[in-house]
Amino acid sequence: MTNKEVAILRIGHRPERDQRVTTHVALTGRALGAAGMYLAASDKGVVQSVLDVAERWGGQFFCEDNIKWRTCIKDWKAAGGKVVHLTMYGINLPDIIQEIRPCEKLLVVVGAEKVPGEMYGLADYNVAVTGQPHSEIASLALFLDRYHEGKEFGHDFPGAKIRIIPSRAGKQTEEL
Amino acid sequence: MTNKEVAILRIGHRPERDQRVTTHVALTGRALGAAGMYLAASDKGVVQSVLDVAERWGGQFFCEDNIKWRTCIKDWKAAGGKVVHLTMYGINLPDIIQEIRPCEKLLVVVGAEKVPGEMYGLADYNVAVTGQPHSEIASLALFLDRYHEGKEFGHDFPGAKIRIIPSRAGKQTEEL
Repeated sequence: MTNKEVAILRIGHRPERDQRVTTHVALTGRALGAAGMYLAASDKGVVQSVLDVAERWGGQFFCEDNIKWRTCIKDWKAAGGKVVHLTMYGINLPDIIQEIRPCEKLLVVVGAEKVPGEMYGLADYNVAVTGQPHSEIASLALFLDRYHEGKEFGHDFPGAKIRIIPSRAGKQTEEL
Repeated sequence: MTNKEVAILRIGHRPERDQRVTTHVALTGRALGAAGMYLAASDKGVVQSVLDVAERWGGQFFCEDNIKWRTCIKDWKAAGGKVVHLTMYGINLPDIIQEIRPCEKLLVVVGAEKVPGEMYGLADYNVAVTGQPHSEIASLALFLDRYHEGKEFGHDFPGAKIRIIPSRAGKQTEEL
């Protein structure tokens, strides 16, 4: 995983209505080895709560709002990266992940309910996670897990102030 | 997957605040081969929107609200099933999934932010999906994917009125 650079671009976010889902998108990305999230909307609340988690639980996750999504995609491609758009209309994950895995710089676009038609053409890969309607959070989690081949479960978060000690029953944490 | 019976028990749901996340939990379960969701709260809105999706996209997914969670767990165990509780404090998924996989009747408990301490003792397995704070939707998705060993990506939904034709760019659907 060390050579791979993955970032998330969240589009279609509506402040208020999408705050929790977008926060889940960011934290899922962080837990599963993404470097950060670009948010194509203005929402300091989301940014702050994501950065608060990152500060306490470690690692270098970034979260930036007020991103222009077309520019973000253009710049990412200009820097040699590829763009994956998660959409139920795309090619099913198991049928395309091997083609994507060699790309080491990946922008994963995660839309809310409405995604501009233009997005399908801008993406290098439109990827479906089952082709059934469910959740962009679930789609992101499964995509990252397959992309990293499960290695993100051993991901390290340097600088953490707290760590969980896995246990069969109950809650055990360690302050660092 | 055919011999496996998986249901979800959603606890700690607060109407209004959790409606979208709980709906995502149900739809993620449905897409990844769960039989249905028990909701330990009263929320007809969630039930209706989940059943609307199931009606249109096929399969036999159930969704019941007003469930008493302790009774649900007790009945599940009495019928020979096992109970998995997804919690960041549990044993990391890759370290325990092989122990769980032979169980063919599984209730997966998905909590919202606050979970009663009692739950940790009632579960046969407390399972963490990375031990980092992120999303119960992501946790459920990764758990089901590992449990089914990826086979749920080929899951069939009989009786669907609509189906997606996977495509590299754009949206293609088929009315059935």
